[in-house]
Amino acid sequence: MPRPHTLDAWQAAQLLARRELSATALLQDCLERIDAREPQVQAFAHIDPAAALARARALDASPWQGPLHGLPLGVKDLFDTADMPTGYGSPLYAGHRPAADAAVVALCRQAGAVLPGKTVTTEFAYFQPGPTRNPRQLGHTPGGSSSGSAAAVADGMLPLALGTQTAASIIRPAAYCGVFGYKPSAGRVPRAGIKSLSETLDTVGGFGRSVRDLALLAAVLLGDDALLAEGALDSPAAPRIGLCPTPDAAQMDSDAQAAWHQAVQALAPDAAALQDAAWPAALPDLVALQKAVMAHEMARAFSHERLQHGPALSAQLQQLCDQGLAIAAATHAGHLRSTQAARVLADDWFQTHDLLLAPSTTGAAPAGLQSTGDPLFCRGWTLLGLPCVHLPFTQAANGLPMGVQLVGRWGKDARLLAAAQWCWQRLRGSAAGPGPARGG
Amino acid sequence: MPRPHTLDAWQAAQLLARRELSATALLQDCLERIDAREPQVQAFAHIDPAAALARARALDASPWQGPLHGLPLGVKDLFDTADMPTGYGSPLYAGHRPAADAAVVALCRQAGAVLPGKTVTTEFAYFQPGPTRNPRQLGHTPGGSSSGSAAAVADGMLPLALGTQTAASIIRPAAYCGVFGYKPSAGRVPRAGIKSLSETLDTVGGFGRSVRDLALLAAVLLGDDALLAEGALDSPAAPRIGLCPTPDAAQMDSDAQAAWHQAVQALAPDAAALQDAAWPAALPDLVALQKAVMAHEMARAFSHERLQHGPALSAQLQQLCDQGLAIAAATHAGHLRSTQAARVLADDWFQTHDLLLAPSTTGAAPAGLQSTGDPLFCRGWTLLGLPCVHLPFTQAANGLPMGVQLVGRWGKDARLLAAAQWCWQRLRGSAAGPGPARGG
Repeated sequence: MPRPHTLDAWQAAQLLARRELSATALLQDCLERIDAREPQVQAFAHIDPAAALARARALDASPWQGPLHGLPLGVKDLFDTADMPTGYGSPLYAGHRPAADAAVVALCRQAGAVLPGKTVTTEFAYFQPGPTRNPRQLGHTPGGSSSGSAAAVADGMLPLALGTQTAASIIRPAAYCGVFGYKPSAGRVPRAGIKSLSETLDTVGGFGRSVRDLALLAAVLLGDDALLAEGALDSPAAPRIGLCPTPDAAQMDSDAQAAWHQAVQALAPDAAALQDAAWPAALPDLVALQKAVMAHEMARAFSHERLQHGPALSAQLQQLCDQGLAIAAATHAGHLRSTQAARVLADDWFQTHDLLLAPSTTGAAPAGLQSTGDPLFCRGWTLLGLPCVHLPFTQAANGLPMGVQLVGRWGKDARLLAAAQWCWQRLRGSAAGPGPARGG
Repeated sequence: MPRPHTLDAWQAAQLLARRELSATALLQDCLERIDAREPQVQAFAHIDPAAALARARALDASPWQGPLHGLPLGVKDLFDTADMPTGYGSPLYAGHRPAADAAVVALCRQAGAVLPGKTVTTEFAYFQPGPTRNPRQLGHTPGGSSSGSAAAVADGMLPLALGTQTAASIIRPAAYCGVFGYKPSAGRVPRAGIKSLSETLDTVGGFGRSVRDLALLAAVLLGDDALLAEGALDSPAAPRIGLCPTPDAAQMDSDAQAAWHQAVQALAPDAAALQDAAWPAALPDLVALQKAVMAHEMARAFSHERLQHGPALSAQLQQLCDQGLAIAAATHAGHLRSTQAARVLADDWFQTHDLLLAPSTTGAAPAGLQSTGDPLFCRGWTLLGLPCVHLPFTQAANGLPMGVQLVGRWGKDARLLAAAQWCWQRLRGSAAGPGPARGG
């Protein structure tokens, strides 16, 4: 057997359920990996090995609790935890102890997850980076804002982790670190107990090492047991794939273009259809709209921090708030109305396509830790509230991971995950993956 | 001059801005009223007169801070406050001290509000009542869930108060207590720092003693300074009023019917149009849909409380969670999709009507404190996310307050408030009001 920390969550869950692997052994192997790598990677804002070991031992001594039984799960430090400090990536909240777990944290615990610690988020999940490095090449950004969650899963520290996305904060770090990422349909996963940035955009999701890992997490986040059934990821038919590089396609660098073409070639032979998905002329500029909605909503959501502790916010966040406050209330209401109209229009894509293929990022993880990279190719999909999956399957010229994004119909998360599995089965053989472990 | 505590917020704000009334004098008069009445009414979960007096004195010594300068504002105990305990109406959170103010609390403080205390909410803003009594007749419910806020404003303890609505929690207590209530368009007011019940439905709003009070509060909640301009509440033309008693019209009792007919008679002569607003045949059963969405979302939002402290929840809340958990994830996604479609359909009403006239409640405040009354006539509008105003203008046979609800187009809150002022000018003379103070 490979070392437990290299398994994907799904495979580990099978072994755990059959008691062929103990929660304690899996956790200990993960903690060993964390010990070895955390000084370089810095994925964690807080680690509590003793409490996690006690929890793992209790699970080993108890009946099967649920689909995450015994799986170590990273929790982005934007989620409230009653038993661990929750800093939201800001010095303002250093050592803060929430009174309760965030709703999804409670749901993951109920499903049997073991929580070894909190993973690094950028400042309030916006752009100011934390200390985390990209485990594939330590001089590169892991992406943000769910930096620690993506890095920990990529580096074999943890098989699963929770994240959130307001602009690109799940798909981008998944792409930069080379792991599988899942942003659910907007509104389906409760946000109770998560530091609020944007009413319209904040979405809870997570990371794994395979599509079936994402399905495991989705089952708990959505409360959808059907995703756990045998064959839940089997596609009844080959999907109709719409190619949707978006109006910003020219912003893909050569690595992103190469990954795109490689994906198209790998998927074309078996797809029921694979053709351009026309960009509706009536769609507004989604990127500009997302920026404006996010700026205005964040400026108002952070009213307490801005008004009471303004100078303690990063210059980037202060600047965003200033931009947001310069947008008049009636203009913002118009932006929300445009967003609603765009969501209705976007639904039409799925009359003729089962999923859209789209770039995840403009390229591989940039060098340096001063920026978390460009969120360009995620802003629009987040605004539209559509479910998204990142599939890592190839490499950039410099060896960093590359992949593509799949976008599904609102509310059809299970169908998207099944289509993602179908795509993954055709992409996985198409190039040498960036490793480490890859599940089925 | 009348005693300051009987003024509406708008009038008090004028006097405060001109320094003809001091924040300290207004607060002291409110505190006197609270002292006299709180033992009977029990509107407060927490009062801190010393801190409020210090704040009022500081405001009196400082330049004008903003539109709420010196106005005592009640804050429903569902909103986080950094300087006052926040119990969410549940013994689970007795004495809880949040790390930060809710976003709208911070915005109201910035605008100059004085916060004398936290007002009673039902348990987690659901149905289990708090101790508050209806100040009009102490043996009757004040309605819920924003019970204390509505009662405090109705009884002259405070001119303004914040509330939230998920089913009927602003409009119903406003109606039962005989004050003006305002539920903004869904999504326009930040919910950061408010205990989350329902992703789709929770809406921040508040209470005042006149339409212009609601406009004052709306200016701060929406960040819309245009509402503060001279003439902001003047209607450029008489409104086209759609009569929309909803498919549940038969549930109006004789008091509600009498108020309805009185409103129609008072508004008809000057309205540009006043005719039935057809109920679109394609609209689903909004009441059933709202119940299902609320149950499922609340069951998941309260995962921590349900799983860690289940027996400490009221039987009513436990039952709701059980109902919500029985709804499958895919079914719930379908409900959210139906909600979106219904919101698109509802927008058509406003092609031919500037506002809808609708019942607020099935009748006057029921006797007894075991229930907060029937939310029937608010569920649908909350689901549709439309802005709503309650206008109190008449009485039931037993002397309790009665009024009607006005419903506006999504995002057009300012237009609804101006139309509400137009309606109020015609309703106010139509019957003896239930008092006490009534502003312009």
